[in-house]
Amino acid sequence: MTNQADPTPGMKNWKLTLAYDGSDFHGWQVQPGQRTIQAELQAALGRVTGESPLPQGSGRTDAGVHALAQVASFTLMAAIPPTNLLRALNRTLPTSIRILEATLVPDVFHARHSAVAKTYEYRVMPTEPGARQTCPPFLARYVYACSWPLRFAELEQAASAFVGEHDFTSFAATDPDLATRIAAASSEADHSVLTEARSPIRTIFSSLWEQKANETGTLLIYRVRGNGFLHHMVRNLVGTMLDVGRGYLRAEDIGSIFEARSRGAAGPTAPSRGLFLHSVEYDKLRD
Amino acid sequence: MTNQADPTPGMKNWKLTLAYDGSDFHGWQVQPGQRTIQAELQAALGRVTGESPLPQGSGRTDAGVHALAQVASFTLMAAIPPTNLLRALNRTLPTSIRILEATLVPDVFHARHSAVAKTYEYRVMPTEPGARQTCPPFLARYVYACSWPLRFAELEQAASAFVGEHDFTSFAATDPDLATRIAAASSEADHSVLTEARSPIRTIFSSLWEQKANETGTLLIYRVRGNGFLHHMVRNLVGTMLDVGRGYLRAEDIGSIFEARSRGAAGPTAPSRGLFLHSVEYDKLRD
Repeated sequence: MTNQADPTPGMKNWKLTLAYDGSDFHGWQVQPGQRTIQAELQAALGRVTGESPLPQGSGRTDAGVHALAQVASFTLMAAIPPTNLLRALNRTLPTSIRILEATLVPDVFHARHSAVAKTYEYRVMPTEPGARQTCPPFLARYVYACSWPLRFAELEQAASAFVGEHDFTSFAATDPDLATRIAAASSEADHSVLTEARSPIRTIFSSLWEQKANETGTLLIYRVRGNGFLHHMVRNLVGTMLDVGRGYLRAEDIGSIFEARSRGAAGPTAPSRGLFLHSVEYDKLRD
Repeated sequence: MTNQADPTPGMKNWKLTLAYDGSDFHGWQVQPGQRTIQAELQAALGRVTGESPLPQGSGRTDAGVHALAQVASFTLMAAIPPTNLLRALNRTLPTSIRILEATLVPDVFHARHSAVAKTYEYRVMPTEPGARQTCPPFLARYVYACSWPLRFAELEQAASAFVGEHDFTSFAATDPDLATRIAAASSEADHSVLTEARSPIRTIFSSLWEQKANETGTLLIYRVRGNGFLHHMVRNLVGTMLDVGRGYLRAEDIGSIFEARSRGAAGPTAPSRGLFLHSVEYDKLRD
Protein backbone atom coordinates (compact mmCIF):
# COMPACT_ATOMS: atom_id res chain seq x y z
CA MET A 1 0.00 0.00 0.00
CA THR A 2 2.99 2.33 0.43
CA ASN A 3 4.94 1.98 -2.77
CA GLN A 4 4.65 5.74 -3.31
CA ALA A 5 5.61 6.83 0.21
CA ASP A 6 9.38 7.22 -0.16
CA PRO A 7 10.21 7.53 -3.83
CA THR A 8 13.50 5.86 -4.69
CA PRO A 9 15.66 8.17 -6.83
CA GLY A 10 14.93 7.45 -10.49
CA MET A 11 11.49 6.01 -9.75
CA LYS A 12 8.81 7.52 -11.97
CA ASN A 13 5.28 8.09 -10.72
CA TRP A 14 2.53 7.11 -13.15
CA LYS A 15 -1.17 7.94 -13.49
CA LEU A 16 -3.38 5.66 -15.58
CA THR A 17 -6.98 6.31 -16.59
CA LEU A 18 -8.83 3.12 -17.41
CA ALA A 19 -12.28 1.83 -18.38
CA TYR A 20 -13.54 -1.62 -17.50
CA ASP A 21 -16.49 -3.93 -17.77
CA GLY A 22 -16.79 -5.26 -14.21
CA SER A 23 -19.13 -8.16 -15.12
CA ASP A 24 -16.51 -10.88 -15.04
CA PHE A 25 -14.37 -9.55 -12.19
CA HIS A 26 -14.58 -9.78 -8.41
CA GLY A 27 -14.23 -6.02 -8.15
CA TRP A 28 -11.15 -3.82 -8.18
CA GLN A 29 -9.13 -5.05 -5.23
CA VAL A 30 -6.66 -7.95 -5.28
CA GLN A 31 -8.11 -11.03 -3.60
CA PRO A 32 -6.43 -14.42 -3.46
CA GLY A 33 -7.81 -16.83 -6.06
CA GLN A 34 -10.15 -14.25 -7.61
CA ARG A 35 -9.98 -12.41 -10.90
CA THR A 36 -9.84 -8.69 -10.08
CA ILE A 37 -9.05 -5.54 -12.06
CA GLN A 38 -6.14 -4.56 -9.80
CA ALA A 39 -4.57 -8.03 -10.15
CA GLU A 40 -4.98 -8.02 -13.95
CA LEU A 41 -3.38 -4.59 -14.16
CA GLN A 42 -0.50 -5.59 -11.89
CA ALA A 43 0.12 -8.72 -13.98
CA ALA A 44 0.01 -6.70 -17.22
CA LEU A 45 2.53 -4.21 -15.80
CA GLY A 46 4.75 -7.16 -14.91
CA ARG A 47 4.59 -8.59 -18.43
CA VAL A 48 5.27 -5.21 -20.03
CA THR A 49 7.95 -3.75 -17.73
CA GLY A 50 9.29 -6.62 -15.64
CA GLU A 51 8.21 -4.66 -12.53
CA SER A 52 5.00 -5.45 -10.68
CA PRO A 53 3.96 -2.51 -8.50
CA LEU A 54 0.47 -2.84 -7.00
CA PRO A 55 -1.50 -0.06 -8.74
CA GLN A 56 -3.45 2.09 -6.28
CA GLY A 57 -6.99 2.90 -7.43
CA SER A 58 -8.95 6.08 -6.65
CA GLY A 59 -11.15 3.70 -4.68
CA ARG A 60 -12.41 0.14 -4.87
CA THR A 61 -15.27 -0.87 -7.07
CA ASP A 62 -17.34 -3.89 -6.05
CA ALA A 63 -17.90 -7.06 -8.08
CA GLY A 64 -19.95 -6.27 -11.20
CA VAL A 65 -19.42 -2.50 -10.99
CA HIS A 66 -18.00 -0.87 -14.14
CA ALA A 67 -15.72 2.10 -14.72
CA LEU A 68 -15.74 4.65 -17.51
CA ALA A 69 -12.64 6.37 -16.12
CA GLN A 70 -11.10 4.85 -13.00
CA VAL A 71 -7.70 6.30 -12.06
CA ALA A 72 -4.73 4.30 -10.76
CA SER A 73 -1.22 5.33 -9.73
CA PHE A 74 2.04 3.42 -9.22
CA THR A 75 5.80 3.88 -9.59
CA LEU A 76 8.18 2.25 -12.07
CA MET A 77 11.96 2.25 -12.47
CA ALA A 78 11.67 1.57 -16.21
CA ALA A 79 11.98 4.62 -18.46
CA ILE A 80 9.22 3.99 -20.99
CA PRO A 81 7.44 6.63 -23.11
CA PRO A 82 3.79 7.01 -21.97
CA THR A 83 2.36 6.16 -25.41
CA ASN A 84 4.38 2.95 -25.50
CA LEU A 85 3.22 1.94 -22.02
CA LEU A 86 -0.42 2.60 -23.00
CA ARG A 87 -0.13 0.55 -26.21
CA ALA A 88 1.72 -2.32 -24.60
CA LEU A 89 -0.77 -2.55 -21.71
CA ASN A 90 -3.74 -2.55 -24.09
CA ARG A 91 -2.11 -5.34 -26.07
CA THR A 92 -1.64 -7.54 -23.01
CA LEU A 93 -4.80 -6.72 -20.99
CA PRO A 94 -8.12 -8.47 -21.70
CA THR A 95 -10.45 -6.39 -23.92
CA SER A 96 -12.72 -5.90 -20.88
CA ILE A 97 -10.06 -3.52 -19.45
CA ARG A 98 -8.82 -0.61 -21.59
CA ILE A 99 -6.22 2.00 -20.72
CA LEU A 100 -7.46 5.39 -21.94
CA GLU A 101 -4.54 7.51 -20.80
CA ALA A 102 -1.07 7.03 -19.30
CA THR A 103 0.89 10.02 -17.95
CA LEU A 104 3.93 10.71 -15.81
CA VAL A 105 2.95 12.72 -12.72
CA PRO A 106 4.76 14.41 -9.81
CA ASP A 107 5.81 12.12 -6.93
CA VAL A 108 3.15 13.52 -4.59
CA PHE A 109 0.30 12.30 -6.78
CA HIS A 110 -1.69 9.35 -5.38
CA ALA A 111 -4.85 8.15 -7.14
CA ARG A 112 -6.80 7.90 -3.87
CA HIS A 113 -5.25 10.46 -1.52
CA SER A 114 -5.13 13.21 -4.15
CA ALA A 115 -8.72 12.82 -5.40
CA VAL A 116 -10.92 15.84 -4.70
CA ALA A 117 -14.19 14.68 -6.27
CA LYS A 118 -15.75 11.61 -7.85
CA THR A 119 -18.71 11.11 -10.10
CA TYR A 120 -20.75 7.91 -10.35
CA GLU A 121 -23.43 7.05 -12.87
CA TYR A 122 -26.27 4.57 -12.40
CA ARG A 123 -28.29 3.26 -15.37
CA VAL A 124 -31.86 2.02 -15.02
CA MET A 125 -33.99 0.62 -17.82
CA PRO A 126 -37.69 0.54 -16.94
CA THR A 127 -39.26 -2.50 -18.62
CA GLU A 128 -42.65 -4.11 -18.48
CA PRO A 129 -42.37 -7.88 -18.37
CA GLY A 130 -44.15 -9.43 -21.33
CA ALA A 131 -44.45 -6.23 -23.31
CA ARG A 132 -42.26 -5.58 -26.33
CA GLN A 133 -40.01 -3.48 -24.14
CA THR A 134 -37.77 -6.13 -22.66
CA CYS A 135 -34.19 -5.28 -21.73
CA PRO A 136 -32.00 -6.20 -24.73
CA PRO A 137 -29.57 -8.99 -23.76
CA PHE A 138 -26.72 -6.73 -24.91
CA LEU A 139 -27.56 -4.22 -22.16
CA ALA A 140 -28.32 -6.72 -19.39
CA ARG A 141 -24.81 -6.47 -17.90
CA TYR A 142 -24.88 -2.68 -17.88
CA VAL A 143 -28.29 -1.59 -16.60
CA TYR A 144 -30.74 -2.43 -13.87
CA ALA A 145 -33.85 -3.59 -15.73
CA CYS A 146 -36.60 -2.36 -13.47
CA SER A 147 -39.92 -4.08 -14.10
CA TRP A 148 -42.23 -1.45 -12.65
CA PRO A 149 -43.22 2.06 -13.76
CA LEU A 150 -41.21 4.93 -12.26
CA ARG A 151 -42.40 8.52 -11.94
CA PHE A 152 -39.53 10.63 -13.22
CA ALA A 153 -40.54 13.82 -11.34
CA GLU A 154 -40.40 11.88 -8.05
CA LEU A 155 -36.93 10.54 -8.89
CA GLU A 156 -35.75 14.10 -9.58
CA GLN A 157 -37.20 15.41 -6.32
CA ALA A 158 -35.61 12.58 -4.31
CA ALA A 159 -32.22 13.15 -5.99
CA SER A 160 -32.19 16.83 -5.02
CA ALA A 161 -32.64 15.92 -1.34
CA PHE A 162 -29.13 14.39 -1.26
CA VAL A 163 -27.26 17.54 -2.29
CA GLY A 164 -25.10 19.18 0.40
CA GLU A 165 -23.22 17.95 3.46
CA HIS A 166 -25.00 15.10 5.22
CA ASP A 167 -24.44 12.20 7.58
CA PHE A 168 -24.94 9.27 5.17
CA THR A 169 -25.04 6.49 7.82
CA SER A 170 -28.49 5.37 6.63
CA PHE A 171 -27.08 4.86 3.13
CA ALA A 172 -23.83 3.06 4.03
CA ALA A 173 -23.14 -0.65 4.21
CA THR A 174 -21.88 -1.49 7.68
CA ASP A 175 -18.21 -2.41 7.37
CA PRO A 176 -17.19 -4.72 10.22
CA ASP A 177 -13.61 -4.86 8.90
CA LEU A 178 -12.92 -1.14 9.07
CA ALA A 179 -11.60 -1.07 12.66
CA THR A 180 -9.26 -3.96 11.83
CA ARG A 181 -8.05 -2.22 8.71
CA ILE A 182 -7.39 1.01 10.64
CA ALA A 183 -5.35 -0.89 13.25
CA ALA A 184 -3.39 -2.65 10.51
CA ALA A 185 -2.73 0.47 8.42
CA SER A 186 0.89 0.36 7.37
CA SER A 187 1.41 4.11 6.93
CA GLU A 188 0.37 7.39 8.48
CA ALA A 189 -1.40 8.34 5.25
CA ASP A 190 -3.40 5.11 5.09
CA HIS A 191 -4.29 5.44 8.77
CA SER A 192 -5.70 8.93 8.32
CA VAL A 193 -7.57 7.96 5.14
CA LEU A 194 -9.19 5.00 6.88
CA THR A 195 -10.08 7.07 9.94
CA GLU A 196 -11.66 9.63 7.69
CA ALA A 197 -13.45 6.80 5.86
CA ARG A 198 -15.06 5.96 9.20
CA SER A 199 -16.75 9.35 9.31
CA PRO A 200 -20.16 9.11 7.67
CA ILE A 201 -20.14 12.79 6.64
CA ARG A 202 -19.91 13.41 2.90
CA THR A 203 -20.69 16.36 0.64
CA ILE A 204 -22.70 15.82 -2.53
CA PHE A 205 -22.13 18.57 -5.10
CA SER A 206 -24.74 17.45 -7.63
CA SER A 207 -27.32 14.69 -7.90
CA LEU A 208 -29.41 14.51 -11.09
CA TRP A 209 -31.48 12.13 -13.21
CA GLU A 210 -31.59 12.29 -16.98
CA GLN A 211 -33.89 10.47 -19.45
CA LYS A 212 -32.29 9.16 -22.61
CA ALA A 213 -34.36 7.53 -25.36
CA ASN A 214 -32.73 5.46 -28.07
CA GLU A 215 -33.67 2.65 -30.46
CA THR A 216 -33.66 0.03 -27.70
CA GLY A 217 -35.84 1.89 -25.21
CA THR A 218 -35.61 4.54 -22.52
CA LEU A 219 -32.69 4.71 -20.12
CA LEU A 220 -32.85 6.62 -16.85
CA ILE A 221 -29.38 7.79 -15.91
CA TYR A 222 -28.53 9.06 -12.43
CA ARG A 223 -25.30 11.02 -12.00
CA VAL A 224 -23.93 11.99 -8.60
CA ARG A 225 -20.79 14.02 -7.88
CA GLY A 226 -19.36 14.32 -4.37
CA ASN A 227 -16.20 14.61 -2.30
CA GLY A 228 -16.39 10.94 -1.35
CA PHE A 229 -18.76 8.01 -1.05
CA LEU A 230 -19.28 5.41 1.68
CA HIS A 231 -19.39 1.69 0.85
CA HIS A 232 -22.50 0.89 -1.26
CA MET A 233 -23.62 4.51 -0.86
CA VAL A 234 -24.53 5.18 -4.50
CA ARG A 235 -26.40 1.88 -4.82
CA ASN A 236 -28.29 2.65 -1.60
CA LEU A 237 -29.18 6.17 -2.77
CA VAL A 238 -30.48 4.65 -6.02
CA GLY A 239 -32.42 1.88 -4.27
CA THR A 240 -34.08 4.53 -2.09
CA MET A 241 -34.90 6.80 -5.04
CA LEU A 242 -36.43 3.87 -6.95
CA ASP A 243 -38.68 3.24 -3.92
CA VAL A 244 -39.73 6.90 -4.19
CA GLY A 245 -40.23 6.56 -7.97
CA ARG A 246 -42.61 3.63 -7.51
CA GLY A 247 -44.50 5.23 -4.62
CA TYR A 248 -43.22 3.11 -1.69
CA LEU A 249 -41.57 6.19 -0.13
CA ARG A 250 -42.05 9.93 -0.60
CA ALA A 251 -39.21 12.33 -1.46
CA GLU A 252 -40.17 14.22 1.71
CA ASP A 253 -39.25 11.12 3.77
CA ILE A 254 -35.56 11.48 2.92
CA GLY A 255 -34.98 14.04 5.71
CA SER A 256 -36.17 11.57 8.32
CA ILE A 257 -34.16 8.74 6.71
CA PHE A 258 -31.02 10.88 7.17
CA GLU A 259 -32.01 11.56 10.81
CA ALA A 260 -32.61 7.88 11.57
CA ARG A 261 -28.88 7.17 11.02
CA SER A 262 -29.87 3.54 10.38
CA ARG A 263 -29.41 1.47 7.24
CA GLY A 264 -32.85 -0.05 7.78
CA ALA A 265 -34.55 3.34 7.30
CA ALA A 266 -33.51 3.67 3.64
CA GLY A 267 -34.43 1.61 0.56
CA PRO A 268 -32.70 -1.52 -0.73
CA THR A 269 -29.26 -1.70 -2.37
CA ALA A 270 -29.63 -1.41 -6.17
CA PRO A 271 -27.75 -4.13 -8.14
CA SER A 272 -24.08 -3.55 -8.99
CA ARG A 273 -24.49 -4.04 -12.76
CA GLY A 274 -26.10 -0.60 -13.27
CA LEU A 275 -23.23 1.27 -11.52
CA PHE A 276 -20.34 3.01 -13.31
CA LEU A 277 -17.48 4.99 -11.79
CA HIS A 278 -17.80 7.90 -14.23
CA SER A 279 -14.74 10.04 -13.39
CA VAL A 280 -12.32 11.15 -10.68
CA GLU A 281 -11.16 14.74 -10.29
CA TYR A 282 -7.82 16.04 -9.00
CA ASP A 283 -6.46 19.49 -8.35
CA LYS A 284 -4.42 20.75 -11.25
CA LEU A 285 -1.10 18.92 -11.10
CA ARG A 286 2.09 20.98 -10.87
CA ASP A 287 5.60 19.71 -11.32
CA MET B 1 -35.50 -33.19 -35.06
CA THR B 2 -38.98 -34.34 -36.14
CA ASN B 3 -41.27 -33.22 -33.40
CA GLN B 4 -43.32 -31.26 -35.92
CA ALA B 5 -43.62 -34.01 -38.55
CA ASP B 6 -46.87 -35.70 -37.49
CA PRO B 7 -48.81 -33.34 -35.24
CA THR B 8 -50.65 -35.19 -32.50
CA PRO B 9 -54.24 -33.96 -32.26
CA GLY B 10 -54.41 -31.14 -29.71
CA MET B 11 -50.73 -30.26 -30.13
CA LYS B 12 -50.18 -26.55 -30.68
CA ASN B 13 -47.41 -25.27 -32.92
CA TRP B 14 -45.46 -22.29 -31.56
CA LYS B 15 -43.18 -19.66 -33.07
CA LEU B 16 -40.83 -17.73 -30.78
CA THR B 17 -38.73 -14.73 -31.75
CA LEU B 18 -35.75 -14.29 -29.44
CA ALA B 19 -32.66 -12.13 -28.97
CA TYR B 20 -29.49 -13.36 -27.32
CA ASP B 21 -25.98 -12.39 -26.35
CA GLY B 22 -23.94 -15.34 -27.62
CA SER B 23 -20.78 -14.45 -25.64
CA ASP B 24 -21.26 -16.99 -22.89
CA PHE B 25 -22.78 -19.81 -24.97
CA HIS B 26 -21.36 -22.57 -27.14
CA GLY B 27 -23.67 -21.54 -29.95
CA TRP B 28 -27.31 -22.41 -30.63
CA GLN B 29 -27.26 -26.18 -30.90
CA VAL B 30 -27.56 -28.63 -27.99
CA GLN B 31 -24.20 -30.20 -27.19
CA PRO B 32 -23.55 -32.55 -24.27
CA GLY B 33 -21.89 -30.77 -21.35
CA GLN B 34 -22.02 -27.33 -23.01
CA ARG B 35 -24.17 -24.30 -22.31
CA THR B 36 -26.13 -23.58 -25.51
CA ILE B 37 -29.11 -21.38 -26.38
CA GLN B 38 -31.22 -24.30 -27.59
CA ALA B 39 -30.59 -26.23 -24.36
CA GLU B 40 -31.42 -23.19 -22.18
CA LEU B 41 -34.64 -22.65 -24.10
CA GLN B 42 -35.61 -26.32 -23.87
CA ALA B 43 -34.96 -26.31 -20.12
CA ALA B 44 -36.98 -23.10 -19.66
CA LEU B 45 -39.91 -24.62 -21.61
CA GLY B 46 -39.69 -27.65 -19.31
CA ARG B 47 -39.82 -25.49 -16.17
CA VAL B 48 -42.73 -23.41 -17.48
CA THR B 49 -44.92 -26.06 -19.15
CA GLY B 50 -43.71 -29.44 -17.90
CA GLU B 51 -43.06 -30.40 -21.54
CA SER B 52 -39.57 -30.25 -23.06
CA PRO B 53 -39.76 -30.14 -26.86
CA LEU B 54 -36.45 -29.43 -28.57
CA PRO B 55 -37.01 -26.00 -30.16
CA GLN B 56 -35.97 -25.91 -33.82
CA GLY B 57 -34.05 -22.77 -34.77
CA SER B 58 -34.10 -21.04 -38.16
CA GLY B 59 -30.48 -22.14 -38.30
CA ARG B 60 -27.57 -22.64 -35.95
CA THR B 61 -25.44 -19.79 -34.72
CA ASP B 62 -21.84 -20.54 -33.75
CA ALA B 63 -20.24 -19.92 -30.35
CA GLY B 64 -20.03 -16.18 -29.67
CA VAL B 65 -22.50 -15.19 -32.41
CA HIS B 66 -25.44 -13.06 -31.27
CA ALA B 67 -29.06 -12.79 -32.41
CA LEU B 68 -31.31 -9.75 -32.60
CA ALA B 69 -34.25 -11.87 -33.77
CA GLN B 70 -33.66 -15.61 -34.07
CA VAL B 71 -36.80 -17.67 -34.69
CA ALA B 72 -37.58 -21.06 -33.12
CA SER B 73 -40.56 -23.40 -33.44
CA PHE B 74 -41.83 -26.33 -31.35
CA THR B 75 -45.10 -27.98 -30.34
CA LEU B 76 -46.77 -28.11 -26.94
CA MET B 77 -49.81 -29.93 -25.55
CA ALA B 78 -50.32 -27.28 -22.88
CA ALA B 79 -52.94 -24.63 -23.67
CA ILE B 80 -51.23 -21.46 -22.50
CA PRO B 81 -51.97 -17.91 -23.69
CA PRO B 82 -49.04 -16.54 -25.76
CA THR B 83 -48.51 -13.53 -23.47
CA ASN B 84 -48.28 -15.81 -20.45
CA LEU B 85 -45.76 -18.10 -22.16
CA LEU B 86 -43.64 -15.10 -23.15
CA ARG B 87 -43.68 -13.65 -19.60
CA ALA B 88 -43.00 -16.97 -17.92
CA LEU B 89 -40.08 -17.79 -20.25
CA ASN B 90 -38.50 -14.36 -19.71
CA ARG B 91 -38.79 -14.85 -15.95
CA THR B 92 -36.99 -18.20 -16.05
CA LEU B 93 -34.41 -17.62 -18.81
CA PRO B 94 -31.07 -15.89 -18.11
CA THR B 95 -31.11 -12.17 -19.00
CA SER B 96 -28.73 -12.94 -21.89
CA ILE B 97 -31.68 -14.59 -23.70
CA ARG B 98 -34.91 -12.62 -24.16
CA ILE B 99 -38.12 -13.73 -25.84
CA LEU B 100 -39.44 -10.87 -27.97
CA GLU B 101 -42.56 -12.53 -29.34
CA ALA B 102 -44.49 -15.78 -28.86
CA THR B 103 -47.28 -16.74 -31.28
CA LEU B 104 -49.38 -19.78 -32.17
CA VAL B 105 -48.82 -20.74 -35.81
CA PRO B 106 -50.29 -23.27 -38.29
CA ASP B 107 -48.95 -26.83 -38.01
CA VAL B 108 -47.01 -26.54 -41.28
CA PHE B 109 -44.76 -23.78 -39.91
CA HIS B 110 -41.15 -24.81 -39.18
CA ALA B 111 -38.57 -22.20 -38.18
CA ARG B 112 -35.94 -23.61 -40.56
CA HIS B 113 -37.88 -25.25 -43.41
CA SER B 114 -40.30 -22.34 -43.80
CA ALA B 115 -37.69 -19.55 -43.83
CA VAL B 116 -37.49 -17.68 -47.15
CA ALA B 117 -34.77 -15.13 -46.33
CA LYS B 118 -32.34 -14.26 -43.58
CA THR B 119 -30.44 -11.11 -42.75
CA TYR B 120 -27.15 -11.00 -40.86
CA GLU B 121 -25.35 -7.97 -39.51
CA TYR B 122 -21.62 -7.66 -38.80
CA ARG B 123 -20.23 -4.82 -36.65
CA VAL B 124 -16.68 -3.56 -37.03
CA MET B 125 -15.07 -0.82 -34.93
CA PRO B 126 -11.91 0.57 -36.53
CA THR B 127 -9.49 1.53 -33.74
CA GLU B 128 -5.94 2.72 -33.67
CA PRO B 129 -3.99 1.06 -30.86
CA GLY B 130 -2.61 3.63 -28.48
CA ALA B 131 -4.79 6.47 -29.70
CA ARG B 132 -7.75 7.73 -27.69
CA GLN B 133 -10.00 5.63 -29.89
CA THR B 134 -9.81 2.30 -28.13
CA CYS B 135 -12.76 -0.06 -28.28
CA PRO B 136 -14.84 0.59 -25.13
CA PRO B 137 -14.85 -2.54 -22.92
CA PHE B 138 -18.67 -2.45 -23.03
CA LEU B 139 -18.61 -3.06 -26.79
CA ALA B 140 -15.79 -5.62 -26.88
CA ARG B 141 -18.19 -8.59 -26.90
CA TYR B 142 -20.26 -7.13 -29.73
CA VAL B 143 -17.86 -5.75 -32.33
CA TYR B 144 -14.67 -6.70 -34.10
CA ALA B 145 -12.19 -4.02 -33.07
CA CYS B 146 -10.09 -3.70 -36.17
CA SER B 147 -6.74 -2.02 -35.52
CA TRP B 148 -6.00 -0.80 -39.04
CA PRO B 149 -7.54 1.91 -41.23
CA LEU B 150 -10.26 0.77 -43.65
CA ARG B 151 -11.28 2.56 -46.84
CA PHE B 152 -15.05 2.70 -46.77
CA ALA B 153 -15.51 3.06 -50.54
CA GLU B 154 -13.53 -0.16 -51.06
CA LEU B 155 -15.71 -2.00 -48.54
CA GLU B 156 -18.82 -0.80 -50.38
CA GLN B 157 -17.46 -1.91 -53.74
CA ALA B 158 -16.50 -5.36 -52.43
CA ALA B 159 -19.94 -5.80 -50.82
CA SER B 160 -21.73 -5.14 -54.09
CA ALA B 161 -19.78 -7.95 -55.78
CA PHE B 162 -21.60 -10.55 -53.65
CA VAL B 163 -25.14 -9.65 -54.79
CA GLY B 164 -26.89 -12.22 -56.99
CA GLU B 165 -26.75 -16.01 -57.36
CA HIS B 166 -23.24 -17.38 -56.87
CA ASP B 167 -21.35 -20.53 -55.99
CA PHE B 168 -20.02 -19.58 -52.55
CA THR B 169 -17.60 -22.51 -52.12
CA SER B 170 -14.66 -20.11 -51.62
CA PHE B 171 -16.52 -18.54 -48.70
CA ALA B 172 -17.72 -21.70 -46.94
CA ALA B 173 -16.11 -23.62 -44.12
CA THR B 174 -15.54 -27.18 -45.24
CA ASP B 175 -17.94 -29.39 -43.29
CA PRO B 176 -16.54 -32.94 -43.04
CA ASP B 177 -19.62 -34.08 -41.05
CA LEU B 178 -22.19 -33.21 -43.69
CA ALA B 179 -22.15 -36.55 -45.54
CA THR B 180 -22.56 -38.38 -42.22
CA ARG B 181 -25.40 -36.10 -41.21
CA ILE B 182 -27.18 -36.66 -44.54
CA ALA B 183 -26.88 -40.44 -44.15
CA ALA B 184 -28.19 -40.22 -40.59
CA ALA B 185 -31.10 -37.87 -41.39
CA SER B 186 -34.13 -39.17 -39.54
CA SER B 187 -36.79 -37.73 -41.85
CA GLU B 188 -37.42 -37.01 -45.51
CA ALA B 189 -37.55 -33.29 -44.75
CA ASP B 190 -34.22 -33.28 -42.89
CA HIS B 191 -32.64 -35.32 -45.67
CA SER B 192 -33.66 -32.87 -48.37
CA VAL B 193 -32.64 -29.87 -46.28
CA LEU B 194 -29.19 -31.37 -45.69
CA THR B 195 -28.77 -32.32 -49.35
CA GLU B 196 -29.71 -28.79 -50.31
CA ALA B 197 -27.27 -27.52 -47.68
CA ARG B 198 -24.56 -29.38 -49.60
CA SER B 199 -25.13 -27.20 -52.66
CA PRO B 200 -22.87 -24.17 -52.50
CA ILE B 201 -25.26 -22.02 -54.57
CA ARG B 202 -26.92 -19.17 -52.70
CA THR B 203 -28.63 -15.96 -53.73
CA ILE B 204 -27.74 -12.69 -52.01
CA PHE B 205 -30.50 -10.06 -52.30
CA SER B 206 -28.62 -7.18 -50.73
CA SER B 207 -25.15 -6.55 -49.31
CA LEU B 208 -24.41 -3.10 -47.87
CA TRP B 209 -22.10 -1.27 -45.46
CA GLU B 210 -23.23 1.64 -43.31
CA GLN B 211 -21.17 4.04 -41.17
CA LYS B 212 -22.62 4.98 -37.81
CA ALA B 213 -20.93 7.54 -35.56
CA ASN B 214 -21.86 7.86 -31.91
CA GLU B 215 -20.25 9.09 -28.67
CA THR B 216 -17.98 6.05 -28.41
CA GLY B 217 -16.57 6.15 -31.95
CA THR B 218 -17.44 5.03 -35.46
CA LEU B 219 -19.06 1.68 -36.16
CA LEU B 220 -19.04 0.11 -39.60
CA ILE B 221 -22.09 -2.09 -39.99
CA TYR B 222 -22.42 -4.66 -42.77
CA ARG B 223 -25.87 -6.05 -43.52
CA VAL B 224 -26.45 -8.97 -45.88
CA ARG B 225 -29.80 -10.50 -46.85
CA GLY B 226 -30.02 -13.77 -48.76
CA ASN B 227 -32.01 -16.95 -49.29
CA GLY B 228 -29.50 -18.93 -47.24
CA PHE B 229 -25.93 -18.94 -45.96
CA LEU B 230 -23.26 -21.64 -45.87
CA HIS B 231 -21.33 -22.37 -42.68
CA HIS B 232 -19.12 -19.37 -41.72
CA MET B 233 -20.17 -17.67 -44.97
CA VAL B 234 -20.95 -14.22 -43.54
CA ARG B 235 -17.74 -14.18 -41.49
CA ASN B 236 -15.75 -15.20 -44.57
CA LEU B 237 -17.39 -12.51 -46.72
CA VAL B 238 -16.51 -9.96 -44.00
CA GLY B 239 -12.92 -11.20 -43.62
CA THR B 240 -12.49 -10.88 -47.39
CA MET B 241 -14.01 -7.37 -47.52
CA LEU B 242 -11.75 -6.23 -44.66
CA ASP B 243 -8.77 -7.43 -46.70
CA VAL B 244 -10.08 -5.26 -49.55
CA GLY B 245 -10.65 -2.32 -47.18
CA ARG B 246 -7.03 -2.43 -46.01
CA GLY B 247 -5.60 -2.91 -49.51
CA TYR B 248 -4.52 -6.58 -49.33
CA LEU B 249 -7.05 -7.48 -52.05
CA ARG B 250 -8.93 -5.46 -54.66
CA ALA B 251 -12.72 -5.53 -55.05
CA GLU B 252 -12.08 -6.61 -58.67
CA ASP B 253 -10.44 -9.81 -57.34
CA ILE B 254 -13.75 -11.11 -55.98
CA GLY B 255 -14.79 -12.53 -59.37
CA SER B 256 -11.71 -14.73 -59.51
CA ILE B 257 -12.16 -15.71 -55.84
CA PHE B 258 -15.64 -17.02 -56.76
CA GLU B 259 -14.16 -18.89 -59.75
CA ALA B 260 -11.40 -20.50 -57.70
CA ARG B 261 -14.05 -22.46 -55.69
CA SER B 262 -11.43 -22.81 -52.98
CA ARG B 263 -11.57 -21.54 -49.40
CA GLY B 264 -7.90 -20.55 -49.64
CA ALA B 265 -8.64 -17.99 -52.35
CA ALA B 266 -10.72 -15.74 -50.06
CA GLY B 267 -9.78 -13.73 -46.97
CA PRO B 268 -9.74 -14.94 -43.35
CA THR B 269 -12.79 -15.72 -41.18
CA ALA B 270 -13.80 -12.62 -39.20
CA PRO B 271 -14.31 -13.24 -35.45
CA SER B 272 -17.71 -14.46 -34.25
CA ARG B 273 -18.26 -11.64 -31.73
CA GLY B 274 -19.11 -9.06 -34.44
CA LEU B 275 -21.84 -11.23 -36.00
CA PHE B 276 -25.58 -10.90 -35.33
CA LEU B 277 -28.44 -12.87 -36.85
CA HIS B 278 -30.58 -9.79 -37.60
CA SER B 279 -33.88 -11.33 -38.77
CA VAL B 280 -35.56 -14.26 -40.49
CA GLU B 281 -38.35 -13.85 -43.03
CA TYR B 282 -41.27 -16.18 -43.76
CA ASP B 283 -44.06 -16.11 -46.30
CA LYS B 284 -47.22 -14.65 -44.86
CA LEU B 285 -48.72 -17.32 -42.61
CA ARG B 286 -52.25 -18.51 -43.29
CA ASP B 287 -54.38 -20.62 -41.01
